[in-house]
Amino acid sequence: VTAREPIDGDTPIHSVGIVGAGQLARMMCEAASALGIGVVVLAEAAGDPGALVAPAVVVGAPDDPTALRALAGLCSVLTFDHEQVDVDLLRSLEHEGAVVRPDPATLDMAVDKGEMRRRLAEAGIPVPAHRVIGKASATDALAAIADLASDHGWPLVVKAARGGYDGKGVWPVEDLADASRVARRASDAGTPLVVEEMVAIDAELAVVVARRADGSAVSWPAVETIQVDGLCREVRYPGTLGPDLARRAGEVARSVADVAEAVGVLAVELFVSGDRLLVNEVAARPHNSAHWTIEGATTSQFENHLRAVLDLPLGSTEPTAPCVATVNVLGGAEGADPVKRLVPALRVPGAHVHLYGKAPRPGRKLGHVTVCGDDSDDVRLRAWTAARALGTPVPSGVDLSGSGATARGGAA
Amino acid sequence: VTAREPIDGDTPIHSVGIVGAGQLARMMCEAASALGIGVVVLAEAAGDPGALVAPAVVVGAPDDPTALRALAGLCSVLTFDHEQVDVDLLRSLEHEGAVVRPDPATLDMAVDKGEMRRRLAEAGIPVPAHRVIGKASATDALAAIADLASDHGWPLVVKAARGGYDGKGVWPVEDLADASRVARRASDAGTPLVVEEMVAIDAELAVVVARRADGSAVSWPAVETIQVDGLCREVRYPGTLGPDLARRAGEVARSVADVAEAVGVLAVELFVSGDRLLVNEVAARPHNSAHWTIEGATTSQFENHLRAVLDLPLGSTEPTAPCVATVNVLGGAEGADPVKRLVPALRVPGAHVHLYGKAPRPGRKLGHVTVCGDDSDDVRLRAWTAARALGTPVPSGVDLSGSGATARGGAA
Repeated sequence: VTAREPIDGDTPIHSVGIVGAGQLARMMCEAASALGIGVVVLAEAAGDPGALVAPAVVVGAPDDPTALRALAGLCSVLTFDHEQVDVDLLRSLEHEGAVVRPDPATLDMAVDKGEMRRRLAEAGIPVPAHRVIGKASATDALAAIADLASDHGWPLVVKAARGGYDGKGVWPVEDLADASRVARRASDAGTPLVVEEMVAIDAELAVVVARRADGSAVSWPAVETIQVDGLCREVRYPGTLGPDLARRAGEVARSVADVAEAVGVLAVELFVSGDRLLVNEVAARPHNSAHWTIEGATTSQFENHLRAVLDLPLGSTEPTAPCVATVNVLGGAEGADPVKRLVPALRVPGAHVHLYGKAPRPGRKLGHVTVCGDDSDDVRLRAWTAARALGTPVPSGVDLSGSGATARGGAA
Repeated sequence: VTAREPIDGDTPIHSVGIVGAGQLARMMCEAASALGIGVVVLAEAAGDPGALVAPAVVVGAPDDPTALRALAGLCSVLTFDHEQVDVDLLRSLEHEGAVVRPDPATLDMAVDKGEMRRRLAEAGIPVPAHRVIGKASATDALAAIADLASDHGWPLVVKAARGGYDGKGVWPVEDLADASRVARRASDAGTPLVVEEMVAIDAELAVVVARRADGSAVSWPAVETIQVDGLCREVRYPGTLGPDLARRAGEVARSVADVAEAVGVLAVELFVSGDRLLVNEVAARPHNSAHWTIEGATTSQFENHLRAVLDLPLGSTEPTAPCVATVNVLGGAEGADPVKRLVPALRVPGAHVHLYGKAPRPGRKLGHVTVCGDDSDDVRLRAWTAARALGTPVPSGVDLSGSGATARGGAA
């Protein structure tokens, strides 16, 4: 038995280096294999989901200069599985000749909620009313919060622009006393802040755009995401809100990709509130809200991400079926491995099961199930049935009684 | 940089070991990654297509007892990328506790044209008129050929039941003098023979069946294969010959899978000759004629092969589009690497490009392109256009003028 060392002296021209080795890297590897493109991943551990299937692995932290340089030396383009990267370090790698896509500035904008809100607002893209506070004294932070409150009233939402403290990054504040507490703790922790209106969310949409360096771009149709306790549980194409809103969401998302000068795929999550459509989050990488594109669209987000960062023509984003549902597979309370539960899941007709090779833990995202078909309720029901068979807890509000008449999944 | 050794002490329960590391193993790896199933391949060389993407690799010959034992020790089920295996050695591994799927007897039947013809004929499955000669003296071989000629007249086709000599395995014979020459050379080389009627081939069909150990089976719809100079150049779903023949082909193929007691996928290639439908070849593994199922069917042959050998429920074989065409990517005369020609190929709308990571050589199968759509001529035209952009020589008879009216590709 020999351990494999597939990238030898002669590095393939079209090899992609991925910083991070989570499930996004894993699914990029699957797409790269089909296209005949070599991949090397930078993994924190050899057992990471992407490292388990990547043709070559560098083990190291994403902000370790030695590891990043080793990765850059093994590929022609660097891209990302996550945004937890050191922008200055990437800039210096670029000065050394590495090609980094998306550009570190795009990553930085997506990572920094304050910067993102500021740049989108400047470009006339609708975002929640907000004040960017940054790292500020408790007094200055409170003043900014009070200023927004004078326009919008209470409650508001204070968010960490990056990171967070006490394991959290979002704090609803009801009044000045609440705000004062959050401002003090954040100031003590050195956490940069942004404060926003509390949006009354009717639904959440997501649009993923694939964009090349020359500005050409394609986007998949908008989907509706069902969030429970801050976690995306389900993705529906088409959403329930009609084609007009979906089209507007697509236009907004393509504008965001232009403002961000994205190369690769970029995901935009939007709030629907009354007749308002507001950008909530941006991620400059493949995104959970477009896993449905693997079977549900002519070209998946993973393939188009690779195409975009390699400056290859982008593929069609047309759906392959009238209705597609994706349900995330989460670890159940008993922590069973979904791989050991494949039998009942694969009995569900048309269930495309994706498991990421992660150690099962309650509530951890371990995979997803996609079902394509002609009927919206039917595909949701089948996707939930398979996800439940794999151990996923079913939130209240999702009816799996089998009638096909499943309720909305308790959107936040 | 560390070389990865992903299969450590604790071998995953659901790991599959693949004997051989060609493109079939590579595409099995892609399907296994999605399902969260570990794979280890036995590769002749670390640069084999499957070895380039497999999570773990054992380097060795498929008939090397040490290498096969190492492979068996790393997985829960052994399966195959090709049939060039040592059946006795596999039997002894089974006695040592290895699970081998398909059974070595199924592989053996598929490998041995004489045995295959005999068993299918015994089961009442239509095959070309033939005599099984085996390893025989020149005199006995000639007598058998003459015996078939007395029933069917000349010409006939003598085939090596296994292997061949002078790099060939098929010899058309026009008369006794031809037959005598072939009989003498085969006898000298120790090549076992079978002789068959020369079938007037109107078209060729292929059906792939996925079958579990309990006998439950599913099959993908019959496709028409376009062969040029003995090489499959193109696969069309649906074929041009109508649903009746396709249904009969499916019935025949499922009977073959039962006779062979297949576990995993089994491919049946059939001749259409007038109103006769005759089994030509059988392969007890994923097959080129079903690469279209990756995008063109709800479940691919690769995923269902894994499901079958792991005794998991089989997935739906329903097509995802009315028309699907797959064209093989062959190395051009100039030997250019198709990876370097991705730009024009990926410009073709809806072209799903698969490249196998093989060193380019003229005429070598380097990949395939699949296009799904509503119009039979249109999907063929697009698939051929992308394959040509990747360097594939276009046989005379295929019209890529762009009118959509492409001629039949010179079927043998």
